[in-house]
Amino acid sequence: MELKHIKQSQWSKARAGVLNTDHGKILTPVFMPVGTVGSVKAMSSQDVKETGSQIILGNTYHLYLRPGTDIIKSAGGLHEFMNWHGPILTDSGGFQVFSLGKLNKISEDKVEFQSHIDGSKHTLSPAISMDIQRILGSDIVMAFDECTHYPISKVDAEASMHRTHRWEKASLDYFREGGSLYGFQQHLFGIVQGSVFSHLRQESAKILTDMEFDGYAIGGLSVGESSDDMYEMTDIVTDILPQNQPRYLMGVGKPENLVQSVALGIDMFDCVLPTRNARHGLVFTWDGPIHIKTAKWKEDFSPVDSSCACSTCQNYSRAYIRHLFKAGEILALRLASIHNIHFYQDLMTSIRKSIIEDTFQQFYTSFFNTYKI
Amino acid sequence: MELKHIKQSQWSKARAGVLNTDHGKILTPVFMPVGTVGSVKAMSSQDVKETGSQIILGNTYHLYLRPGTDIIKSAGGLHEFMNWHGPILTDSGGFQVFSLGKLNKISEDKVEFQSHIDGSKHTLSPAISMDIQRILGSDIVMAFDECTHYPISKVDAEASMHRTHRWEKASLDYFREGGSLYGFQQHLFGIVQGSVFSHLRQESAKILTDMEFDGYAIGGLSVGESSDDMYEMTDIVTDILPQNQPRYLMGVGKPENLVQSVALGIDMFDCVLPTRNARHGLVFTWDGPIHIKTAKWKEDFSPVDSSCACSTCQNYSRAYIRHLFKAGEILALRLASIHNIHFYQDLMTSIRKSIIEDTFQQFYTSFFNTYKI
Repeated sequence: MELKHIKQSQWSKARAGVLNTDHGKILTPVFMPVGTVGSVKAMSSQDVKETGSQIILGNTYHLYLRPGTDIIKSAGGLHEFMNWHGPILTDSGGFQVFSLGKLNKISEDKVEFQSHIDGSKHTLSPAISMDIQRILGSDIVMAFDECTHYPISKVDAEASMHRTHRWEKASLDYFREGGSLYGFQQHLFGIVQGSVFSHLRQESAKILTDMEFDGYAIGGLSVGESSDDMYEMTDIVTDILPQNQPRYLMGVGKPENLVQSVALGIDMFDCVLPTRNARHGLVFTWDGPIHIKTAKWKEDFSPVDSSCACSTCQNYSRAYIRHLFKAGEILALRLASIHNIHFYQDLMTSIRKSIIEDTFQQFYTSFFNTYKI
Repeated sequence: MELKHIKQSQWSKARAGVLNTDHGKILTPVFMPVGTVGSVKAMSSQDVKETGSQIILGNTYHLYLRPGTDIIKSAGGLHEFMNWHGPILTDSGGFQVFSLGKLNKISEDKVEFQSHIDGSKHTLSPAISMDIQRILGSDIVMAFDECTHYPISKVDAEASMHRTHRWEKASLDYFREGGSLYGFQQHLFGIVQGSVFSHLRQESAKILTDMEFDGYAIGGLSVGESSDDMYEMTDIVTDILPQNQPRYLMGVGKPENLVQSVALGIDMFDCVLPTRNARHGLVFTWDGPIHIKTAKWKEDFSPVDSSCACSTCQNYSRAYIRHLFKAGEILALRLASIHNIHFYQDLMTSIRKSIIEDTFQQFYTSFFNTYKI
């Protein structure tokens, strides 16, 4: 999988590119909404499309437990099941096993865990994760890794990193042997680990690059470390990763994190933050996030953001959305989610446009001047 | 307000007509989805429009308490506030005061009650209900009445009915004195009461007809009495109500109730049943309702109803909707609600078409042969 370069920023490591998949082109930098259990929460696939989203993320752990691979396979894969016909990236399941499941045993070649839903026992391994993602039929498959918690000692981070590398190599070997179930190509990304230790991150980036994945993710960040640490690790890693392949910063982040990380050479992002915040009434504007539930907006009949073209801003006022939240109406969650995802996509479109027009520095400066965190 | 007759069924009392409002024509018989607190639950106004709904109902009690009349007035009325530009009917608030609020005192000229939300004290009267509905700006306003519980003694039903008549006369006098706040015409409907007592229903229908309302509702049914009683009361009342004005059976009902009541001369219906059932996973098909959560549908990739043109049936399968319900995904509620409201509108369109084409008897027979209750 090649990242076709459209433009390299001269001022920073930012780049605008195109990725080709059998479900369509992806213009980068790109933000991927998270469709945890087969839907981007509170939104239909049509809603997601209308926000300008190009690719969504599905969670292997969640989909494996519910509805399960038998049903997804009968449906003809996740695209068909959820009626999303653009590209899909699936994670490896590892992150949720470590964060949500009850971990029973990690050994050299597999992880045994219990479901957070019903306590049932399951096993994940590089081969099992590849098999599940083959059935899900994602366009981009993630290698099976361990996402370490934070903080972690250097010794533990290093041991985990080396096992992760062995798991990723096993993922790659198993993946390359198999074929696609549904007649379109799947691509495999490796994941750089190493916590906040520069030398580990450098070592991980080099080892993975040598394995020749289709693309590279940076995992284990946005897990509690400082933004400075996150940016420093990202900067170190993107110096090493190949120029002509996509780079994906997993689980990031806030709007300001996206702008900053694009400057550090990142092409792809995913995060539950815009939808989760939406469900709590925190909505984004170009002046910064606002709490829509506060009394301040009770008679404000203007849209959430006056420059936003999303269906929420075109049709509904701050006062109405505030009322829906106060009254516990389900519609509130959808309207806020549509707006937040659309805001993120607008942000990415603006970033990309500025890179192409060689005005990314001005965009960057202007964004941080007006966007109040 | 005149019901312009398009066609009178020769086989039954069913009629197809047109009602004109300043927010558009209403083709009858019509089903009105209930937008309790400013939204038809789980649906946007755009969703509601796309189901083919012509007019929605707003609950005066709920909207008075939240967001309150100040905010609705600032917004320029309920149409503007919720971005619904078709006709709106509002109830009088009486039903919810008696069913949801904590009733403190009923006197000859007013009802004192406490909010079900925060216990705050409020008063409703014919004049106050008219004032609130004037601020809401509904196209059709309901007179303030008392909806008696069931069962009730004839003596109590009669006393309540007479007070209701006095309240309705007071509503009418107060309403006729006032004007519209937003420059479009509002119409006032009277409500026939009398529980399940034929003579009371006849008396109520005659007294109200003499008051010359714009239209007539039948209240106090679908509150626990048998379907036979409901149909009998409806039949008696529609024999008396004027032919050239709309007749509205309040709070009804199931698909079979709608078909039967149209045959008895009813033009308008509202009910929370299609949306409430949707949120519990009960969805309608022309063969009868089905429980979408059951394991039977887990690998059924056909739509809820194969003849349905709603956005849910055009895009999503029974298996997917079942999965969303099982996984607790919010989207399930919207997809099921859209389908159920669309099903109701399809039903009304089919009824109307058959009346116009003089095939209502065949439609009626065919419906009850195939629709399994």
